[in-house]
Amino acid sequence: MSGVRRIGILTGGGDAPGLNAVIRAVVKACAYIHKVSVVGITGGYAGLVELKARELTLDDAGGLLVRGGTILGTSNRANPYRYPYVRPDGVEEMIDASSSVKRNVDKLGLDCLIVIGGDGTLACGERLQRELGIPVVGVPKTIDNDLGATNYTFGFATALEVATNALDRLHTTAESHHRVMLLEVMGREAGWIALHAGIAGGADVILIREIPFKIEPILAKFRARERRGRPFSLVVVAEGAAPAGGEQVFSGQDTVTGWKRLGGVSAQVAREIEEKGGYEVRSTILGHIQRGGSPVPVDRILATRFGVEAARLAATGQFGFMVALRDDEIVAVPLVDAIGKLKLVDPGCQMVVTARAVGTVFGDEDPEAVEAAEG
Amino acid sequence: MSGVRRIGILTGGGDAPGLNAVIRAVVKACAYIHKVSVVGITGGYAGLVELKARELTLDDAGGLLVRGGTILGTSNRANPYRYPYVRPDGVEEMIDASSSVKRNVDKLGLDCLIVIGGDGTLACGERLQRELGIPVVGVPKTIDNDLGATNYTFGFATALEVATNALDRLHTTAESHHRVMLLEVMGREAGWIALHAGIAGGADVILIREIPFKIEPILAKFRARERRGRPFSLVVVAEGAAPAGGEQVFSGQDTVTGWKRLGGVSAQVAREIEEKGGYEVRSTILGHIQRGGSPVPVDRILATRFGVEAARLAATGQFGFMVALRDDEIVAVPLVDAIGKLKLVDPGCQMVVTARAVGTVFGDEDPEAVEAAEG
Amino acid sequence: MSGVRRIGILTGGGDAPGLNAVIRAVVKACAYIHKVSVVGITGGYAGLVELKARELTLDDAGGLLVRGGTILGTSNRANPYRYPYVRPDGVEEMIDASSSVKRNVDKLGLDCLIVIGGDGTLACGERLQRELGIPVVGVPKTIDNDLGATNYTFGFATALEVATNALDRLHTTAESHHRVMLLEVMGREAGWIALHAGIAGGADVILIREIPFKIEPILAKFRARERRGRPFSLVVVAEGAAPAGGEQVFSGQDTVTGWKRLGGVSAQVAREIEEKGGYEVRSTILGHIQRGGSPVPVDRILATRFGVEAARLAATGQFGFMVALRDDEIVAVPLVDAIGKLKLVDPGCQMVVTARAVGTVFGDEDPEAVEAAEG
Amino acid sequence: MSGVRRIGILTGGGDAPGLNAVIRAVVKACAYIHKVSVVGITGGYAGLVELKARELTLDDAGGLLVRGGTILGTSNRANPYRYPYVRPDGVEEMIDASSSVKRNVDKLGLDCLIVIGGDGTLACGERLQRELGIPVVGVPKTIDNDLGATNYTFGFATALEVATNALDRLHTTAESHHRVMLLEVMGREAGWIALHAGIAGGADVILIREIPFKIEPILAKFRARERRGRPFSLVVVAEGAAPAGGEQVFSGQDTVTGWKRLGGVSAQVAREIEEKGGYEVRSTILGHIQRGGSPVPVDRILATRFGVEAARLAATGQFGFMVALRDDEIVAVPLVDAIGKLKLVDPGCQMVVTARAVGTVFGDEDPEAVEAAEG
Repeated sequence: MSGVRRIGILTGGGDAPGLNAVIRAVVKACAYIHKVSVVGITGGYAGLVELKARELTLDDAGGLLVRGGTILGTSNRANPYRYPYVRPDGVEEMIDASSSVKRNVDKLGLDCLIVIGGDGTLACGERLQRELGIPVVGVPKTIDNDLGATNYTFGFATALEVATNALDRLHTTAESHHRVMLLEVMGREAGWIALHAGIAGGADVILIREIPFKIEPILAKFRARERRGRPFSLVVVAEGAAPAGGEQVFSGQDTVTGWKRLGGVSAQVAREIEEKGGYEVRSTILGHIQRGGSPVPVDRILATRFGVEAARLAATGQFGFMVALRDDEIVAVPLVDAIGKLKLVDPGCQMVVTARAVGTVFGDEDPEAVEAAEG
Repeated sequence: MSGVRRIGILTGGGDAPGLNAVIRAVVKACAYIHKVSVVGITGGYAGLVELKARELTLDDAGGLLVRGGTILGTSNRANPYRYPYVRPDGVEEMIDASSSVKRNVDKLGLDCLIVIGGDGTLACGERLQRELGIPVVGVPKTIDNDLGATNYTFGFATALEVATNALDRLHTTAESHHRVMLLEVMGREAGWIALHAGIAGGADVILIREIPFKIEPILAKFRARERRGRPFSLVVVAEGAAPAGGEQVFSGQDTVTGWKRLGGVSAQVAREIEEKGGYEVRSTILGHIQRGGSPVPVDRILATRFGVEAARLAATGQFGFMVALRDDEIVAVPLVDAIGKLKLVDPGCQMVVTARAVGTVFGDEDPEAVEAAEG
Repeated sequence: MSGVRRIGILTGGGDAPGLNAVIRAVVKACAYIHKVSVVGITGGYAGLVELKARELTLDDAGGLLVRGGTILGTSNRANPYRYPYVRPDGVEEMIDASSSVKRNVDKLGLDCLIVIGGDGTLACGERLQRELGIPVVGVPKTIDNDLGATNYTFGFATALEVATNALDRLHTTAESHHRVMLLEVMGREAGWIALHAGIAGGADVILIREIPFKIEPILAKFRARERRGRPFSLVVVAEGAAPAGGEQVFSGQDTVTGWKRLGGVSAQVAREIEEKGGYEVRSTILGHIQRGGSPVPVDRILATRFGVEAARLAATGQFGFMVALRDDEIVAVPLVDAIGKLKLVDPGCQMVVTARAVGTVFGDEDPEAVEAAEG
Repeated sequence: MSGVRRIGILTGGGDAPGLNAVIRAVVKACAYIHKVSVVGITGGYAGLVELKARELTLDDAGGLLVRGGTILGTSNRANPYRYPYVRPDGVEEMIDASSSVKRNVDKLGLDCLIVIGGDGTLACGERLQRELGIPVVGVPKTIDNDLGATNYTFGFATALEVATNALDRLHTTAESHHRVMLLEVMGREAGWIALHAGIAGGADVILIREIPFKIEPILAKFRARERRGRPFSLVVVAEGAAPAGGEQVFSGQDTVTGWKRLGGVSAQVAREIEEKGGYEVRSTILGHIQRGGSPVPVDRILATRFGVEAARLAATGQFGFMVALRDDEIVAVPLVDAIGKLKLVDPGCQMVVTARAVGTVFGDEDPEAVEAAEG
């Protein structure tokens, strides 16, 4: 017997389609199988610092499967170890609020905490367990699919669908107008969305941070297609893509001022293509559309599997683990092994080789070879 | 008997979902009913200046109903009266190429020309008929739905669906993160897409060019919602929206350099909201995604109806007309009456009144009244 | 001053996408504009007989725009004039329960009733007003779009999208397998869904109740297409379609036993095509998928406009009217004029002519003419 | 050097979304990487018996990624070892036409054959290689995902999306009408689609062939939900599902006469629920909608990866293999090991355990335990 009676659950970091499906699965598995109660904590770790929480029952779980976002709310900044505190004199400073977390976990009578979030949220959970003895089970969430310990995370397939649909729409306009259409997608560190969407949407060029690009092979591809009677092209750019030898420039999807100031990587790529190649370019920045809305079936299933396994680990007293997907099975991996491992696109991996085989250019090719390949 | 044996067809201006469905309907109606042949002209009027055209048969019409873009290609610049010509010395100048058009219409043996396009394309067609005696039938195309002579045009419902889907996705993120999410949609002159998508997507604020906005009522709406426990809001901005008393600033969706230079109206609105209201804002610019891709059923039907009626007018010798939708029936209106009439949103119209009745703010309200209304 | 302080609202008959959007619009308009309260009645008229109701506030309206079904529930059988009553001896009989309705309207303190429903629900409302003096405002709901007094009703565009998407999917299979694919859609009396979806999905044959069909012109169409190298065809059948000179056979989408017993009209058509034409046929019956789920943008807008206008009529004391869409404007028509008027497809209407012009066969053509038309 | 200059490609069996994407990938990889030519064979093995084939170039590959069906056409019956032959006296008999296949492979100058299809198509290919020495590479296709040698096949994710969307739509109607909604999906042998869609769509009951069901636990689930204030339920039935101890009854999705005669498994389940439970039931049979239309992104990617690897195997002379997905990598498995291995749902597998954990009933439970679990 684990003695677990009451499990807390929180969602941290940016939202992703499937968060609510995880919450639902935890609540349902706890009700149907484990007979333990579930407490939803509001606003990520902030809800533990400021004690905002409420019981979650089967009735609360109704309708959650298809719903985007998280009913618990989330907070990007809610790190209990660097928590914003406004002093009586009005100055805001960062304090260590982890003792409040510990106190409120006890006050809520929680035997375990299920934390759903990205690397930061999981690392926080691991530290809370290690330093303060709060039992923790982690559920990985990263829309960019860049967590090393799991093959896939929920939300990624939905982002892929949004990005691919956008490419499908841009395709017909590119074809009708003889233009270069450029789509900037998420992916500051890892280019998985750009890579997958680029293959699924038939992009002629994919630019990701892991493969620094030059402009010449890109223009060579455009010329080769033009010669073959296809005077239009689709380019997918991860927001973190950067030219070879150059500096990385974030597109600043997250700050409007950033947009204005920098224009983003897609603006720079577009300008290069226009100026050096003489092509008309149109750009679209998908932004937050990629991370909202109802999850696609694949993400609902993965989120449900994660939630059921997290509930099992928590209810049976197997703390300190994170659930993960490996070879189509959900497994538990030690949290301490899982955090801090960024999964980047290996330029030699099968997916990149596949994309190259259907003629997609990454910007690191020899321009003459690109032109020759088109036949 | 009209004596019409051979009809030319071209698509001009920006693309819109449904162009191919019009072409298909013309080809089919000409084959099944009128027994006249159809010649597809490539690249808008450019195909008439440079004689690029090919016969279109029933086989060419297969699969066109669901396909975005236009198989004939289009050209934004192809005005036969100001046609780009490169002189032997390499200098480009604009010449009157209408005599080439006339010559090539004769060479192709065309008894009539069906021109599908926006106000510019239609005006050109009207002038070709008036000045050179080329029989013309027009089909209106404007994704912004801003042509005065017809209630709706194809492509608008598809753009509406894309914009509404984007709002649906942004909604869940706004809710989870307690943010203001801002969506910039097409509409430089007329705010129809913003108005319709705003109602369909439940936007809290709709900004369009026809109703100059102030920032205060917008912030009042945010505050009122916050007080009611809804600390997030959705804002739809037409790219032509402009502050009251201020200057209009195009967002420059069409030029990447414009983006960088100006940041667009949505960037400006976002900055105002962040600075004056203290809210976190995230912006998305949909851009060309709104005008590409497979048309929704409503647009396929309207395009088919337009095409069938245009074929009938052309085949029966009723030239100088444009097809239009009025009270759910397709009618023929004189081209000369149809062109040059921009249809703007009347700030007192039923749709705006409807949006206000469900609590949507347009930025011209009294801030105190906005706060009071929320209860 | 109308003196109206409290409005009841109910939904009757089968569900349709957009019901919740109407409820939301009524609640919002009553809160933001009219400052009157709204009471939601549960289960259609049954909630008035059995007094099941609850206050609806702005908070209840949140999230309703995108949600299919009706939060108030509905009942197909809840006619207060023929209400099922179980006697003490266990026998069920039908009684007149209208006096209970009157009593409960008073008990709830309702100054007016907004009834959302089909012809039956609306007729009931009109009678309650006429006989018992209960002030009523009607909102038309019919997924078949067969109410005479309004051009369109919400839910129809969503059903059209579902049916068209199904045709798009069947198209590729038909093409790959050289088969006849048959899709049965809703429409017992009126064939609007079949007609619109047939045009939007490029059906080769459309069968509706208003145009009794023969099998020969259908087979002639298949043969003609085959000769032209297109050995596959798409057939859309309204569930009420019937052969010329024959008896109507409902497909019994609503009863599983009906399916088994009769097989439905699509089964009969399929058998005829297989036996007389020698074609391989595959059938799909869409059933209730057509009336559930999130409404498409066009339906959300129409539902919102209906709701806002119904709230205005109710709050300002203009009783006995039904809201309707005419030439793109929402108008009020006397309930008494609106009920009992079924809107059928006129075989000579522009939509049917359009469908025929693109080569669609309805089954009333001369087979030889059909073969000749294909060229 | 493999010496391979010319590769034939054919698609056999029922269609599946992604077939065209495989063809495209093969053509592109052969053009860009391997510099070998590709010959498309029409109508599956029939095209080899009757010599119907044509060169496929990069231009033919354009637009194929998003297109459902197969441009090569397919045939369910085209087994070269039992090929239908009409004798001069008009009698049809089955003959061994494999020698024609061999002759035509030589006539076309094919160095290898890529066969894309289900178990039957692949087994035929393996036999052609073994007996006649025709070099073969296989690509697995099964919309039911029931091939043992590969984790997933293309088309399955698309079928899952169609089925899940249908469940989403039925959900709102079930909720509004207090009904049991039943959805019959594909899966004669293996219940993967029902299992996955049931989890993704939140079904209360999933019935598959691998877990024979009783009606009592199903009714117990309905009662338990009713008691909890949820008087409606969703049931997903695989077409091959069968009651415990009873006989399997195919629903006969493929024959209209079958429908009429048997009513299918869903009709029988519906009748049982209505008669024994007293619930109102509505059934939908998705049929061929599940296997047509544009593939979802995940299927496009998998199809592309399969195609690229098949091209590599063929072009480099590695014959007798089938491509497969294992732990997210594409691998080559010997054809002889891959065929004849049906992959069924193991009733104890993690996916079934997951579904049970969120309260889904499979019909093999103890009815009292089902009622107790709901709380």
